[in-house]
Amino acid sequence: MYSERMSTPDRLIESTRELLWERGYVGTSPKAILQRAGAGQGSMYHHFKGKPDLALAAIRRTAEELLAAAEGVLDGPGTPYERIEAYLRRERDVLRGCPIGRLTMDPDVIASDELRAPVDETLDRIRERIAGIVEEGKEQGQFATWLDGEEIAATVLATVQGGYVLARASGSPAAFDTGVRGLLSLLAPRAS
Amino acid sequence: MYSERMSTPDRLIESTRELLWERGYVGTSPKAILQRAGAGQGSMYHHFKGKPDLALAAIRRTAEELLAAAEGVLDGPGTPYERIEAYLRRERDVLRGCPIGRLTMDPDVIASDELRAPVDETLDRIRERIAGIVEEGKEQGQFATWLDGEEIAATVLATVQGGYVLARASGSPAAFDTGVRGLLSLLAPRAS
Repeated sequence: MYSERMSTPDRLIESTRELLWERGYVGTSPKAILQRAGAGQGSMYHHFKGKPDLALAAIRRTAEELLAAAEGVLDGPGTPYERIEAYLRRERDVLRGCPIGRLTMDPDVIASDELRAPVDETLDRIRERIAGIVEEGKEQGQFATWLDGEEIAATVLATVQGGYVLARASGSPAAFDTGVRGLLSLLAPRAS
Repeated sequence: MYSERMSTPDRLIESTRELLWERGYVGTSPKAILQRAGAGQGSMYHHFKGKPDLALAAIRRTAEELLAAAEGVLDGPGTPYERIEAYLRRERDVLRGCPIGRLTMDPDVIASDELRAPVDETLDRIRERIAGIVEEGKEQGQFATWLDGEEIAATVLATVQGGYVLARASGSPAAFDTGVRGLLSLLAPRAS
């Protein structure tokens, strides 16, 4: 399924990333990874200590990509409100859910400090970035002074993560968009 | 693990509910259900057609309980803002996540219209109830006229569902509370 020029470890990592997104950690067997990567059991154990080790490499790569995409939008042009809006409206494969957030529902990921760490760090860094933008917006008079950057950042992130839940429950991305519009209507600067 | 006075189907349903909450559908084997219920394979197939059938009964019972708890708070005393606040601050076992919302990350639940239906219906009914309360609040001048009940309701529900994600990622309920406080600070009626 992958280019032959891709190295075996890369094929293993890419297969694991896809399977973690589709089926989660608990639902992903080493056999399924090998099958999708077109690799043998020996090559997996040659490059990785086992499923947890391979999953860690896969989660780290996904986390890096997600963080880069989020920061790309959050550090883009526009006012603080516009940058948060761009983050919320960023194109997403909504029905697939968040490849990082979904791991929090995986008991074996949450039970492992090592596997949970990149998930926690990624969400934390995005939250910190948004919190800074909210504080900028307060200084510029765009957001009300009584708002707390950390709190609003958590609300923004939660709306996105919970939006995936609503969308997947209803089988349509519309519920995600509705929640985002609601948050934007609460955040929007208004002449008072 | 259960009272001997509980019927076998009830023990099977209760075991399934717990395992679905802890490990999800994909991570729950019929063997684990039987073990926890202290029941034999024959008794499971006597009462249920198989794992999907038993899971459906379990999900329906959990959905009913969740809906009753949510409606109890939303239909309680107080102003529209206070009722939404009570719903957001309702005591939750935050680190366990939502027993209904977490099912949306389960590929086999989402792939089955029958298993997904009670998940979708439950979230939808809570959302409708909140949307009605927002409209009430608008009529009473407590919420701004430009807010849309359906949108705000989706944001409220998403903040809760995403709050579980943030809490489980960080291993602490604090992140859930922070997101809730952020939303409440945006919703709070203010003299302008």
